[in-house]
Amino acid sequence: MTLTAEQHAEIEAARAASHATRRATVPALEDILFQAIPILDHGFIRVIDYMGDDGAIVQAARVSYGRGTKKVQEDKGLINYLMRHRHTTPFEMCEIKYHVKLPIFVARQWIRHRTANVNEYSARYSILDKEFYIPAPEHLAAQSTVNRQGRGEVLEGEQAARVLDLLRGDAERCYDHYMHMLNENETGLPLDPGRSGLARELARMNLTLNTYTQWYWKTDLHNLMHFLSLRAEAHAQYEIRVYAEAMLDTLRRWVPLCHEAFVQYRMGGAHLSALGVEAVKRMLAGETVTQQTSGLRAREWRELMETLGREE
Amino acid sequence: MTLTAEQHAEIEAARAASHATRRATVPALEDILFQAIPILDHGFIRVIDYMGDDGAIVQAARVSYGRGTKKVQEDKGLINYLMRHRHTTPFEMCEIKYHVKLPIFVARQWIRHRTANVNEYSARYSILDKEFYIPAPEHLAAQSTVNRQGRGEVLEGEQAARVLDLLRGDAERCYDHYMHMLNENETGLPLDPGRSGLARELARMNLTLNTYTQWYWKTDLHNLMHFLSLRAEAHAQYEIRVYAEAMLDTLRRWVPLCHEAFVQYRMGGAHLSALGVEAVKRMLAGETVTQQTSGLRAREWRELMETLGREE
Amino acid sequence: MTLTAEQHAEIEAARAASHATRRATVPALEDILFQAIPILDHGFIRVIDYMGDDGAIVQAARVSYGRGTKKVQEDKGLINYLMRHRHTTPFEMCEIKYHVKLPIFVARQWIRHRTANVNEYSARYSILDKEFYIPAPEHLAAQSTVNRQGRGEVLEGEQAARVLDLLRGDAERCYDHYMHMLNENETGLPLDPGRSGLARELARMNLTLNTYTQWYWKTDLHNLMHFLSLRAEAHAQYEIRVYAEAMLDTLRRWVPLCHEAFVQYRMGGAHLSALGVEAVKRMLAGETVTQQTSGLRAREWRELMETLGREE
Amino acid sequence: MTLTAEQHAEIEAARAASHATRRATVPALEDILFQAIPILDHGFIRVIDYMGDDGAIVQAARVSYGRGTKKVQEDKGLINYLMRHRHTTPFEMCEIKYHVKLPIFVARQWIRHRTANVNEYSARYSILDKEFYIPAPEHLAAQSTVNRQGRGEVLEGEQAARVLDLLRGDAERCYDHYMHMLNENETGLPLDPGRSGLARELARMNLTLNTYTQWYWKTDLHNLMHFLSLRAEAHAQYEIRVYAEAMLDTLRRWVPLCHEAFVQYRMGGAHLSALGVEAVKRMLAGETVTQQTSGLRAREWRELMETLGREE
Repeated sequence: MTLTAEQHAEIEAARAASHATRRATVPALEDILFQAIPILDHGFIRVIDYMGDDGAIVQAARVSYGRGTKKVQEDKGLINYLMRHRHTTPFEMCEIKYHVKLPIFVARQWIRHRTANVNEYSARYSILDKEFYIPAPEHLAAQSTVNRQGRGEVLEGEQAARVLDLLRGDAERCYDHYMHMLNENETGLPLDPGRSGLARELARMNLTLNTYTQWYWKTDLHNLMHFLSLRAEAHAQYEIRVYAEAMLDTLRRWVPLCHEAFVQYRMGGAHLSALGVEAVKRMLAGETVTQQTSGLRAREWRELMETLGREE
Repeated sequence: MTLTAEQHAEIEAARAASHATRRATVPALEDILFQAIPILDHGFIRVIDYMGDDGAIVQAARVSYGRGTKKVQEDKGLINYLMRHRHTTPFEMCEIKYHVKLPIFVARQWIRHRTANVNEYSARYSILDKEFYIPAPEHLAAQSTVNRQGRGEVLEGEQAARVLDLLRGDAERCYDHYMHMLNENETGLPLDPGRSGLARELARMNLTLNTYTQWYWKTDLHNLMHFLSLRAEAHAQYEIRVYAEAMLDTLRRWVPLCHEAFVQYRMGGAHLSALGVEAVKRMLAGETVTQQTSGLRAREWRELMETLGREE
Repeated sequence: MTLTAEQHAEIEAARAASHATRRATVPALEDILFQAIPILDHGFIRVIDYMGDDGAIVQAARVSYGRGTKKVQEDKGLINYLMRHRHTTPFEMCEIKYHVKLPIFVARQWIRHRTANVNEYSARYSILDKEFYIPAPEHLAAQSTVNRQGRGEVLEGEQAARVLDLLRGDAERCYDHYMHMLNENETGLPLDPGRSGLARELARMNLTLNTYTQWYWKTDLHNLMHFLSLRAEAHAQYEIRVYAEAMLDTLRRWVPLCHEAFVQYRMGGAHLSALGVEAVKRMLAGETVTQQTSGLRAREWRELMETLGREE
Repeated sequence: MTLTAEQHAEIEAARAASHATRRATVPALEDILFQAIPILDHGFIRVIDYMGDDGAIVQAARVSYGRGTKKVQEDKGLINYLMRHRHTTPFEMCEIKYHVKLPIFVARQWIRHRTANVNEYSARYSILDKEFYIPAPEHLAAQSTVNRQGRGEVLEGEQAARVLDLLRGDAERCYDHYMHMLNENETGLPLDPGRSGLARELARMNLTLNTYTQWYWKTDLHNLMHFLSLRAEAHAQYEIRVYAEAMLDTLRRWVPLCHEAFVQYRMGGAHLSALGVEAVKRMLAGETVTQQTSGLRAREWRELMETLGREE
């Protein structure tokens, strides 16, 4: 994370202010409001604003006139019920806004979640900072040999060193040429007053995909959980998963009852197919079921055995 | 507007609370937070929660670290610029939530705006109150003879009385039969312990479309303005327009700079077609232009003359 | 279903036409194209248009230049994989459009699925037909005593007769008064030339919620399946479930491989919570697990036992 | 545009097929179906599938049972009316699907239009081709000195040559290193069997933003026109505008009446602010209006004068 002194000062100034409000307020989330939580080598997430709390979910589900949350036990039961039965609209009644700094190739995955509001830093209008993502050595994974979109062993020694050199060297060279083509130094003055700078909207095309960008990203609680269920999950690419994991932690601070239900019924649960349910029923009845007799294909059988914690 | 004493007390309790927050806060909107603003004979809108202010629009447009709003004049200029050039994403960074009580036929128009979150009172689960919309005499309009979806003169005398009798009588009878089929009184006890009540999800079909329902409705500022540009406008049906007008007033309290830009560039402006622009150019050049020489059809010419405040 | 002779003729004319196209075409769906499939007493669904087939899902998943579908077995495997792993975007590449006639109270549930395009018949502009939904005697269910939004026993004898009388009588009376207030007969002429008709946008409020409306409804295959997973399911209200079931049948005709995967992995499967998975693991290990030792609440335990086909 | 012989053959095979259908069919669009229309140096758009035609807009607006389009003049009038009065839902009843090959920095702008379905080629799963966008000399524009997101004069001579060298050199070097890190040649075999390849999901981060990607992109006619109104417009970046212009041409083939209305009422028209309308009224009344007396700011006044074709 690379914040300038000025940015630090702005954040601290925002944190120092306190206002009176009639709105639902969540002290545990207020505690970290505006703070940059570091992710990867130069990235971060910051919670910038939020609307609603656990009580707001309950209030909407009941279309009530007051605040609810008198009896925590009842609210908890209702939130669990809504989560289990896919009653999603009450969760849409809460909203959160993040400021995120992230590599462009991660941003390209993230933006595919369409039900959100986004304001990205414009490289058509402004100049991007000289910051690129370079993986830490322990995340420099080889291509998986069994899963076409997975990672295998970590590269080591000379191979790893060579990859890091290439990534760093290419990103730096491309960035330096970007500034050269723009003909600007970091304070916006021409490097060489004798020539014109290439249009920003063109020069940016020379940057590599690990260059950092940033955006404001705002979504409702239901869609946030959908995002987290896909991106905080084991099969998500590591570089987006670390963002999702940090956001999962902000979810816990913000709406603790909802977070608990989410972990219990969504993240921690398992979906069985029709044949999978059939196989479990037969196993519970004492029958010995094999992949062949289950009717499941090899891969699905393997996944089912994994879910059930059984040796194949 | 018909609030029970209990509902009044809940609203007052919510209004009495005050919390400390680091979030952007808008005193002019806090002033009316939770209060029911009466609409039609039994309806209302209440602002239940909000996120962001004029400064949040500016902050998102600049993807900044601090709060912005140091110089009101600059913020105003930027907001005007964003509005004029259809840069819609910064406006999506603010969010507002309403509790609305409205007749079902109005709800059916309203729900067509899809980019919003909605939690409606469930007549499958609960019993609706005995409240219907009956137009005030001055809104009892005849069918327009020139516009198939417009209103003409106001009905008067016996005709008006007859219509009001029919509307009131049918709504009451249908509601009473609804309760009879449910076999419940207002406290939920069986009217007649000797028989079963019809399922709520079925009995509700007997209600008339002027029966009041209610919902929580949450949307972002951009989509709110889109809604208002269509529903606070002269051609909108009166019964939805009064809701939109009251919401336009909450917009003014919430984000005054944005409201001003909205009125100047969206609500108060006019869209000319290519031929319309051509006609204006020729008129400004001193040429006498008629419908025939403009190439516009009669109706479009009439609308253009109206926009330009000219006799035809 | 009540189609006029003219409507029948229009449908037959559309069915008689045949055009040459380079697009993917599905004969089993073409067979029923435009035909009205009756639902409830006066409703129907008609498939009006479609885009894509099973091959289009595969083609999009592979971002290929040709048509795919050379080897059905491979396509089937890929579609199963996409369905199991929630890769939803390839399913969004197919689109279908229905013409639906349905009671207003069903339309109000249906419209809550926002990711669809809708054109409804406008009662602001035109006059609705005199058609209401009256449940068949075997669907006249009492309120469930255990589930607040469910149905219990079927009403019988006098009670049933009374309910049907009320529903029919109120719907007819309200409709007749609607026409009276409009002051129009069915051919659009004034009933009484001596008085004005009430504006259509107002008169419609006198209709009951079982009045039939109609709309064009268009959605992509992913969102169609989401709709069906909620509405063709056992807990959905009968009056919307019958529409969903008829649409499930059109899904089978249209994209048979996708339909099979949908039934296997979505409709026919089961979602277990984290504690549910834990309980199954312990049971498979030979342990006797009870509701108390599972950590599950009574209702969740009951649902789990039901899923696993076990006595409690 | 760089299609392999195999891709050409697949396209030709798809074009050779002809199927019988009852659906609305548009010969002028069928003529170019599947054909790659070249854009920029290696990009293209191809229309892959479509649903509906001008008649389908009319049919939906009327919620009719037949095909409409009997009287072209009436359909034309209705489509114009719908376009002028922002009745957008009938336009949502048509759908089109493109296959697009485009530079990543263009894809990043494009994807901000959220109301569309997208399937992008996955560089997590597969290897991208060695193709980058290098601007033609006449599009190598300098940064505008008056508009922070615009272009100025075209670079020439040595400056231009230097920029092209940098763009080409950096893209090639980055791509070669990408293949080196992957340790794969173009047929998927290891370059060096003695070492592991870096995971694809990591290696891709070394590519520059002018690398070509491709996707299937599907949207409804209303949202297509919204996209075109922003991207086929003079202020759009050239590199996305050329795609939009080619798509505008497919719009003309597909729905000629709708295209004409779109050009007349949307693309070719002008939006005036409230003060702008006021100024025009006064000018038409013979008054001499200046920027100062108009109340407009300098920039808005300039834009108004431009719209009206007047010297300032």
